[in-house]
Amino acid sequence: MTRLLFRAAPLTLAALVMAEPALAQEAAEPAADAVGGGTAYILNTLLFLIGGFLVMWMAAGFAMLEAGLVRSKNTSVQCIKNIGLYSIAGLMFWVVGYSIAYPGFGEDSLGLFGIAGFPYAMQGVGEADLGTGYSVASDWFFQMVFCATTASIVSGTVAERVKIVPFFLFVVVLTAVIYPVVVSWEWGGGYLDSVHGFSDFAGSTLVHSTGGWAALVGALIIGPRLGRYGADGKVNVFPGANIPLATLGTFILWLGWFGFNGASQLAMGTVGDVSDVSKIFVNTNMAAAAGVVVAIVATLVRYKKADVTMALNGALAGLVAITAEPLAPTVGQAIVIGGIGGLLPVIFVPLLDKLKIDDVVGAIPVHLVAGIWGTMIVPWTGDATFGGQAVGVLLTAVWASAASAVVWLALKYTIGVRPSEEEEMNGLDIGETGIEAYPEFARTA
Amino acid sequence: MTRLLFRAAPLTLAALVMAEPALAQEAAEPAADAVGGGTAYILNTLLFLIGGFLVMWMAAGFAMLEAGLVRSKNTSVQCIKNIGLYSIAGLMFWVVGYSIAYPGFGEDSLGLFGIAGFPYAMQGVGEADLGTGYSVASDWFFQMVFCATTASIVSGTVAERVKIVPFFLFVVVLTAVIYPVVVSWEWGGGYLDSVHGFSDFAGSTLVHSTGGWAALVGALIIGPRLGRYGADGKVNVFPGANIPLATLGTFILWLGWFGFNGASQLAMGTVGDVSDVSKIFVNTNMAAAAGVVVAIVATLVRYKKADVTMALNGALAGLVAITAEPLAPTVGQAIVIGGIGGLLPVIFVPLLDKLKIDDVVGAIPVHLVAGIWGTMIVPWTGDATFGGQAVGVLLTAVWASAASAVVWLALKYTIGVRPSEEEEMNGLDIGETGIEAYPEFARTA
Amino acid sequence: MTRLLFRAAPLTLAALVMAEPALAQEAAEPAADAVGGGTAYILNTLLFLIGGFLVMWMAAGFAMLEAGLVRSKNTSVQCIKNIGLYSIAGLMFWVVGYSIAYPGFGEDSLGLFGIAGFPYAMQGVGEADLGTGYSVASDWFFQMVFCATTASIVSGTVAERVKIVPFFLFVVVLTAVIYPVVVSWEWGGGYLDSVHGFSDFAGSTLVHSTGGWAALVGALIIGPRLGRYGADGKVNVFPGANIPLATLGTFILWLGWFGFNGASQLAMGTVGDVSDVSKIFVNTNMAAAAGVVVAIVATLVRYKKADVTMALNGALAGLVAITAEPLAPTVGQAIVIGGIGGLLPVIFVPLLDKLKIDDVVGAIPVHLVAGIWGTMIVPWTGDATFGGQAVGVLLTAVWASAASAVVWLALKYTIGVRPSEEEEMNGLDIGETGIEAYPEFARTA
Repeated sequence: MTRLLFRAAPLTLAALVMAEPALAQEAAEPAADAVGGGTAYILNTLLFLIGGFLVMWMAAGFAMLEAGLVRSKNTSVQCIKNIGLYSIAGLMFWVVGYSIAYPGFGEDSLGLFGIAGFPYAMQGVGEADLGTGYSVASDWFFQMVFCATTASIVSGTVAERVKIVPFFLFVVVLTAVIYPVVVSWEWGGGYLDSVHGFSDFAGSTLVHSTGGWAALVGALIIGPRLGRYGADGKVNVFPGANIPLATLGTFILWLGWFGFNGASQLAMGTVGDVSDVSKIFVNTNMAAAAGVVVAIVATLVRYKKADVTMALNGALAGLVAITAEPLAPTVGQAIVIGGIGGLLPVIFVPLLDKLKIDDVVGAIPVHLVAGIWGTMIVPWTGDATFGGQAVGVLLTAVWASAASAVVWLALKYTIGVRPSEEEEMNGLDIGETGIEAYPEFARTA
Repeated sequence: MTRLLFRAAPLTLAALVMAEPALAQEAAEPAADAVGGGTAYILNTLLFLIGGFLVMWMAAGFAMLEAGLVRSKNTSVQCIKNIGLYSIAGLMFWVVGYSIAYPGFGEDSLGLFGIAGFPYAMQGVGEADLGTGYSVASDWFFQMVFCATTASIVSGTVAERVKIVPFFLFVVVLTAVIYPVVVSWEWGGGYLDSVHGFSDFAGSTLVHSTGGWAALVGALIIGPRLGRYGADGKVNVFPGANIPLATLGTFILWLGWFGFNGASQLAMGTVGDVSDVSKIFVNTNMAAAAGVVVAIVATLVRYKKADVTMALNGALAGLVAITAEPLAPTVGQAIVIGGIGGLLPVIFVPLLDKLKIDDVVGAIPVHLVAGIWGTMIVPWTGDATFGGQAVGVLLTAVWASAASAVVWLALKYTIGVRPSEEEEMNGLDIGETGIEAYPEFARTA
Repeated sequence: MTRLLFRAAPLTLAALVMAEPALAQEAAEPAADAVGGGTAYILNTLLFLIGGFLVMWMAAGFAMLEAGLVRSKNTSVQCIKNIGLYSIAGLMFWVVGYSIAYPGFGEDSLGLFGIAGFPYAMQGVGEADLGTGYSVASDWFFQMVFCATTASIVSGTVAERVKIVPFFLFVVVLTAVIYPVVVSWEWGGGYLDSVHGFSDFAGSTLVHSTGGWAALVGALIIGPRLGRYGADGKVNVFPGANIPLATLGTFILWLGWFGFNGASQLAMGTVGDVSDVSKIFVNTNMAAAAGVVVAIVATLVRYKKADVTMALNGALAGLVAITAEPLAPTVGQAIVIGGIGGLLPVIFVPLLDKLKIDDVVGAIPVHLVAGIWGTMIVPWTGDATFGGQAVGVLLTAVWASAASAVVWLALKYTIGVRPSEEEEMNGLDIGETGIEAYPEFARTA
């Protein structure tokens, strides 16, 4: 579904309802659900603002999740990467990202590449464009935080072995070009939306898989952390240094996801819209809950222990899975979609290790695998075809992987991506930021 | 006060106001505070959504509070318990909890036990039931997070000595049956509401005391942590491992409480309602503030030191105390109610230890004792009688204690509740989840 | 800009629009942006409530930032100081602060000192004063959390060497008198507003510089931490104990700032207002993002390392800088204002150390220096003069410094401000609160 076509709709509808008493004097009693045009505009805008600050808060969630799951010697770097990537994403999405994402394709355009006028202009003080049905600044804010989320996904996978500067340079390209191009195909009204009827309500593919592909390709090109995989195929476990922080990060992400999915309804200026936002809240919550329970049961069955990091990833995978279609499913269906999502990390985390793909926080199973799962199951409950969904998944895979590979390889063979072996063994914190995360706590071993 | 009777009210009122210009051409100027029916519906729903995500966030608050107050060897288990209980609560409240809580008692019913059709049906996409005045999904979401809060209370008290699986099984029964039955008596329009005029605005008794009784009975049946009470009556202090996390948890809970109490107004589609929500915000904040100050002064007087964990518990006890009636009190009264609330942990935490009741985080003084205090003081400011309040407190005590005892005992004598002594001494993290919370930090002693 | 003059405006406007169809039968179609008076009242109030809880949340942000940047032996004290100061601020702002801040100066008043009737009266249950255009309780709540923010700023600078009780006594005077007097001059409609046309949209000077001056004077009077400055002029680095906590605190503050600046629009009951709130969100975010990027680049250039604490302070300095005028700038201008803000801590943190002014968390560069910068740059984009801005900055400097000096000196020469040298070396946690922050973690060295 395009996020563009919506633009003129809500106010038109609302204005019609509101105008009714004026047009027909005899039908003077307004409809019980009448909402004035100005009121609808305010409420739509408010949804973007609330949704926007909730998704902005997800940046803190990723920061805490990753800070908790890396080793203490790399924690400060993970912190600066996360606040830095959120900042860069905002700046790049303003410079050019939004213009690429919402290019206003012409009639004869295939809808694959385009660019709108930039820098993106907002109205002056006190001005508002009633034709849109919401403040364009609120819309920009909401779209921007999605862009930042995509970058957050990458930082977790390639943690503990990538220097700060090349990581930020990758984020520049990801948030300025790679992600916006994907968005343009669908929410921008391009190829996937207009030709294939691809459906991705809040971004299982557009956001999470795009970030996931960028992460996977990064992990392949950069290689695993030193000592992660023994010569004999043994996987050396590098436990995360701070599980409560990782738990906090997961709760933050869960909270933020109400904004991520809920405000992707893009309007609450009608009773129907706000009711749909409510259903999205419920389905989003239940998919995550099911993901947690399934992950706990699965690890209990498989390992005789309830794995806390799998429970956290189960929540996130359930959330990613329901993101492609959080509205159409019944609650029961949402539980099934999220529950299966929660199983995916339990299966794919060890599988990636067998393939010697080193994903520090499990972002690939959570965002890429569960993102594909969520996207492909949309036809079960929503208005989409398996073929159309597959085209979207594949096109995103090809573009995001290829473009990411070009950037990671360019960085690798120019300024270099990894620190020296000695620096990596000592931890990136000392060499890269000069500030240890926990300077007073003595380390075991 | 029932939360059911409200259902049809706001829209009716609003619709009347809105309809006024239509009915009487000559009285064409709408009332200054007119709000359209559709607008009221949206605003009421929005209150549930905002309140709901704030109360959902309290799950993170409990997780951090408890993760900070247990010893580091049990921290990971506390994390998984908290994310797990929130998930289970959502699922069970969907399967059956909500139907029990809001059973729609028949006319001849005594209003003690009932069940509505389940699974709870939500409207289809784009549909809305204007008769309710809000989206039923938003209401469900808001009610569900209260159910989860009840379970969060229990996990803190019985921390560090209960295995994951029996704890989760207890949560299943608590959130599916024990809590919903209590709710049905009051907010569901049952016995306490219709016969006794019991008043519990946002749940000092229904939520906090219910959780508190379940916790107290659990602590009695499960027994204290190994080594907690010496043979000579000496209490061995087991300090919490991470005070900043506990502080964060308290701030999260304080923030969430604006949703807990504020959105329990159940409507903001009129100027009167939103003004009342505002007053609730102020009173809630001031009760907590008074609780903090009183706890600090009391510990300064008693111990010559300002006890940080008592300050945190003082905030929470103040919040619990004002929850039974956060609207009617003046600000000064709210300060008194919350201030006395903040004194209760200072008195009851050592008292419980004298009774060898081992409450790891002080949840019994905070949620049970302050919950009773808050409920019994309602007649001072609100529309209730001491007799009616006492009936509510006692009935909740009997039911929640008895039902919890049955479940805890059943678990104890079947699958067992506690780990082996060796496992408890080593910390539950190793045996139960296999993941240490802080694997790199060397321990003192 | 006064925050008082606004009071009657929005409803009047809205009521006029709403009344239009009634007054002129032939112009029956309502304006597309019509919002009913009651709806505007609700939406204005809702802005205060959402903004209020977001700014309340900033108290947790300061707590985490400071808990992360002090040494572990002083962390518990920093936690209790932060929850205590937030509580005290609320109580004092209710007792007298609000009345001083919004005194309702008489016609012949110079507008420097005044006091309204107190205690501040709120309406009864179900009552609302339509003349204000919003619930007065929501306004009080929103103003109160600003008062608390001012106190939070001080606690970071003077950390690790001030006892709990004198710190709290300082907070009492700061939040009861010092801050409210400053507010009265501008937002209360006093001297700066009426005579000088001083402009401070959300408080770069009123909140941040006031707190900054109180902190600076405190640092001078109290002196540096023991051992901080060697006899040879060497600065001994005392690294913060927990960088992820400091990062979390910064993210919390960033999130809260959307409420701080956004809700300082004071209304969203018209399409123009909510559009302005949206622009404020964007500018606020971009100023912070620019602050982060500039701080990272600057430390990379200067120290060859990307300093994580400078990145955090860069975000905060960018936020403080845009706070004086977050609406009028274009996005590009906001980036410039925030970016220069982000440079200030990089310059002023080492400068303060050269002057042997010991500012534990860098609050003086962030809140005072960037606050002055943000205030003085308002004429570039907004409606203000350099002269008027300078008067505001200077008057605030004189008053806040002088009043703070009186209080700090009075405390120093009566009950004393600092613990004994032995207690300070052992850490304040043991002597002041008796609870170590991380009792189980062995310390290095």
